[in-house]
Amino acid sequence: MSLPAEFHDIAKRVSNWGRWGDDDEIGTLNLITDAVVREAAATVRSGLRIPLALPLQQDGVQSGLIPGRINPLHTMIQINQELFGPGTVATSDDTAVLSLQTATHWDALTHASHSGKIYNGRPAATITAHGGAQFSGIDKAPHIVSRGVLLDVARAHGVDRLPGGHAVTPEDLDAAEELAGVRVRSGDIVLVRTGQVQVYLSGDKHAYGYPSPGLSIRTPEWFRARDAAAVANDTLTFEIFPPEIEDLWLGVHALDLVEMGMLQGQNWNLEALSTACAQEKRYAFLLSAMPEPFVGATGTPVAPVAVL
Amino acid sequence: MSLPAEFHDIAKRVSNWGRWGDDDEIGTLNLITDAVVREAAATVRSGLRIPLALPLQQDGVQSGLIPGRINPLHTMIQINQELFGPGTVATSDDTAVLSLQTATHWDALTHASHSGKIYNGRPAATITAHGGAQFSGIDKAPHIVSRGVLLDVARAHGVDRLPGGHAVTPEDLDAAEELAGVRVRSGDIVLVRTGQVQVYLSGDKHAYGYPSPGLSIRTPEWFRARDAAAVANDTLTFEIFPPEIEDLWLGVHALDLVEMGMLQGQNWNLEALSTACAQEKRYAFLLSAMPEPFVGATGTPVAPVAVL
Amino acid sequence: MSLPAEFHDIAKRVSNWGRWGDDDEIGTLNLITDAVVREAAATVRSGLRIPLALPLQQDGVQSGLIPGRINPLHTMIQINQELFGPGTVATSDDTAVLSLQTATHWDALTHASHSGKIYNGRPAATITAHGGAQFSGIDKAPHIVSRGVLLDVARAHGVDRLPGGHAVTPEDLDAAEELAGVRVRSGDIVLVRTGQVQVYLSGDKHAYGYPSPGLSIRTPEWFRARDAAAVANDTLTFEIFPPEIEDLWLGVHALDLVEMGMLQGQNWNLEALSTACAQEKRYAFLLSAMPEPFVGATGTPVAPVAVL
Amino acid sequence: MSLPAEFHDIAKRVSNWGRWGDDDEIGTLNLITDAVVREAAATVRSGLRIPLALPLQQDGVQSGLIPGRINPLHTMIQINQELFGPGTVATSDDTAVLSLQTATHWDALTHASHSGKIYNGRPAATITAHGGAQFSGIDKAPHIVSRGVLLDVARAHGVDRLPGGHAVTPEDLDAAEELAGVRVRSGDIVLVRTGQVQVYLSGDKHAYGYPSPGLSIRTPEWFRARDAAAVANDTLTFEIFPPEIEDLWLGVHALDLVEMGMLQGQNWNLEALSTACAQEKRYAFLLSAMPEPFVGATGTPVAPVAVL
Repeated sequence: MSLPAEFHDIAKRVSNWGRWGDDDEIGTLNLITDAVVREAAATVRSGLRIPLALPLQQDGVQSGLIPGRINPLHTMIQINQELFGPGTVATSDDTAVLSLQTATHWDALTHASHSGKIYNGRPAATITAHGGAQFSGIDKAPHIVSRGVLLDVARAHGVDRLPGGHAVTPEDLDAAEELAGVRVRSGDIVLVRTGQVQVYLSGDKHAYGYPSPGLSIRTPEWFRARDAAAVANDTLTFEIFPPEIEDLWLGVHALDLVEMGMLQGQNWNLEALSTACAQEKRYAFLLSAMPEPFVGATGTPVAPVAVL
Repeated sequence: MSLPAEFHDIAKRVSNWGRWGDDDEIGTLNLITDAVVREAAATVRSGLRIPLALPLQQDGVQSGLIPGRINPLHTMIQINQELFGPGTVATSDDTAVLSLQTATHWDALTHASHSGKIYNGRPAATITAHGGAQFSGIDKAPHIVSRGVLLDVARAHGVDRLPGGHAVTPEDLDAAEELAGVRVRSGDIVLVRTGQVQVYLSGDKHAYGYPSPGLSIRTPEWFRARDAAAVANDTLTFEIFPPEIEDLWLGVHALDLVEMGMLQGQNWNLEALSTACAQEKRYAFLLSAMPEPFVGATGTPVAPVAVL
Repeated sequence: MSLPAEFHDIAKRVSNWGRWGDDDEIGTLNLITDAVVREAAATVRSGLRIPLALPLQQDGVQSGLIPGRINPLHTMIQINQELFGPGTVATSDDTAVLSLQTATHWDALTHASHSGKIYNGRPAATITAHGGAQFSGIDKAPHIVSRGVLLDVARAHGVDRLPGGHAVTPEDLDAAEELAGVRVRSGDIVLVRTGQVQVYLSGDKHAYGYPSPGLSIRTPEWFRARDAAAVANDTLTFEIFPPEIEDLWLGVHALDLVEMGMLQGQNWNLEALSTACAQEKRYAFLLSAMPEPFVGATGTPVAPVAVL
Repeated sequence: MSLPAEFHDIAKRVSNWGRWGDDDEIGTLNLITDAVVREAAATVRSGLRIPLALPLQQDGVQSGLIPGRINPLHTMIQINQELFGPGTVATSDDTAVLSLQTATHWDALTHASHSGKIYNGRPAATITAHGGAQFSGIDKAPHIVSRGVLLDVARAHGVDRLPGGHAVTPEDLDAAEELAGVRVRSGDIVLVRTGQVQVYLSGDKHAYGYPSPGLSIRTPEWFRARDAAAVANDTLTFEIFPPEIEDLWLGVHALDLVEMGMLQGQNWNLEALSTACAQEKRYAFLLSAMPEPFVGATGTPVAPVAVL
């Protein structure tokens, strides 16, 4: 089996390989300039902070659909332990084990590969068990603060959430931009709301993961035209799942991560943000979404916050 | 053994128990109002982003000094795995295990207890292995964005780093405020630089941890007077270690976390920030330092970023 | 709520507290003398070895019924890594994370407590997050080799497996002894087969755990009379679940572990052993079931083997 | 770099590829027949059980010498938790994370590869992060009970322990056989004592690992001639370390595991066994050393027991 011609056609159009030099490891994050950040800070009006992360807990979004990916397990190694003797100040200490792509997370560019290559044309074999990703690990991307723009596709469609079979198209993004009254520009981090996370929040993990609305194979060109720095949404799979084109599984991952070098975020809870943006009639804000700098990792938990 | 009278005297003066109601679980984070955040965003001039987290890696700061606290271990469960068949798009997936207080982190208010109590007078026994901290777990504090102020005590002393035996006093903080040309005010997050993290960065983990400069038992009153929202520094132990008062181990932890209800941060890398603040002659900035929402946890890794 | 009078009556009759001294930490394992082991070795006739452990894997018996208890996760930290340079001998290395009571396991005596006490009258509070069980951890029991006796209750009933609601009674054990043609004696390890593990093996984890056949609250007295050294079976819960007496949850655990000081084993796969014993018409054999010596642990994975 | 001619010469002489068919995954474990096991059981005289595993604990043998290999971490998820309500029977539950080659362990045949091959000529690439070893994982070897023979090389040399630079040669093994008064035969598990584990037991982990006595590159031919089923010793590295032949790192691993298909054990504590064998003047015994059946794993903790 090989990837269909349609995939390769889009890949040629969106590729950023070499755009920031052969040594580049961070792709479209290069678009977040100091000027972009200054303008992002200038969007703050009310000072309202809206966290976008789901809780990290055993009862998390992972249901077994993705083999080996586990929900966070929290355990204790000290509980009110008086380490310096009876009657002294006591401490409590925790340990956690988790998949780095478990709940609200960023995929590093190295989370996907195709045809033996990762972003910027490097060999996929540079990812090993011993050290993880030699290039484009998440630790190479430690600065993710920019202007965030919410594209509330569900609201633009007049629904609470899009149905499982809905592929979010460029036309959907245009309509959401119109609702937002703001145009995505170079360096923006785009948050695409489908409402799907409500299914998890209501207790049904299996239906949350599958079938899922998500980004169409046609959207990478839209994001490439706008020069977005990163895209996140409120689903487990990011892209429409099962896919639009038979046998083209994870095609959006391959285009965004491998070809464009654009980070993807998944399982972001955009519900409270949707309400706040609608109330304030503003869909652009300061967004901080700093990766935890796990060395060589192909993903990371993130606790994003929108500041309105 | 019991805590000395001197400790109890200070405790009375700094206690915030009941200040935000008997139900409060977040303490001085209540001081970060929307107005504070608006003003924090307004401090941004250059748009320069400075990440403050140490890498999460096996070769981390933990040296065995703190029993059971481990450095992060990163392992792989998929490497370029073609889950949907040969020739399809491949993915890589990681797992990590780590102590939640391992590298750059926040202590939750529940990280310390004394005399059987945690912050706001609740029983320490509300922390259990089954679910962790029932009250004041780190997941209750999901909004940490505010104005940051760097108090560069090492620079104010004209040294690269303070010696191991140096207790950072209120007078040191005053001098650093003067150098900064800014006064700490209600809701600020204060970053106290000793330069000690250089010892770890140069490869000597043991000397990094012990002996260490750190905050004096006299500083909680200073932070209480200013109504700081949180304090972080660039040491393993946060407070001067070994302590100033014989047998009063972790006294600052008990005063900050239990009595004041003020979050502490440790192992923050303030070196690049120190250089940037000195160059820009500005020591106040927007600081985002979002906890990962581990449910019931008494600490969390954090990837803080200062935006100048 | 307190434990019913019926429980306390049985507890008095089966208690072994003090029987092997106040310092004892291993309970009925004291009954496995060198003479018992010699006789156990002498039972070997065919040399056939039958392993009794379930595979350790993500797709294990844990279904979420027991909060926080996870299936084993296996990850890689090296895969064919040429640590000493290209072309040298390569190695592969693994990491695992697992609940110690996850699959085929022994409960340590400290796995259960009641009324604030563990085995031999010690305070339950001697189990802490910092070091685990100070007394009667599984590392104190490193010698578990003895004569094994299979009591095949399902076969004695003429069925493949007992139904979910079946409490295995002393009369059932008598009948299985008769089928076996062997009487349980001091120091024996008794394996009680219900056939329930077939439910897991056929793919239904939920039905495996609940409802489950298991040992009746009346069996501890039977094992006490025989002076068995340990008992294991082929269920998740060991005892009949839900319990026979309303609100007496885990009563068998409390009697076996806390009162008698007798180790329990769970999730043992006794299917192949059942077939072999029936074929050879012998139900006694050499059994090796060595705990992994996790220091302070209240349970351990075990890979038991019967040698016929 | 490639492996020296000397290595390839020995490889030809010891190879067992194809000996038990092209489908074979367990190598020399095929030599443990029922007859061997019957005779092993017949060696039992005193009934004395001697456990051979080191404790599984944070303060274990790993010192950082082997990258990413961690000591066991034991944490709690329940401590005396009354899951069914106040006053009910309480339970304690543990979690562990560990490298599978951390303390007393078996290497699976797949722990080593060379020239792109594992045992029986299969491609090394059949080991992946997703599922581990497809062939010859440790779960394929669930029956390790046989006759054990202690070859007490240190005692044969009249010393407590061999010095760091001592390569255990075929002549050393011959001398130890003579001391033992027993000849190794087909299907035996051979335990080679150097005394090196005393260095760890006395508290010096670094000196334990390096430099270490261990098996000479000349020993695989000796074990092949005797048709041993497996070999274990009391060192971290198994083979002499650093190696006898410049740049031939892990040559013994490659010969034993890849070419012969013979399991290796490391970090076995043979001190008490040495004393007992000398006292009883018997060096052959029943040995049970069952792997924990981690699916796809290239190693496993083991809690071996010798029954004399």
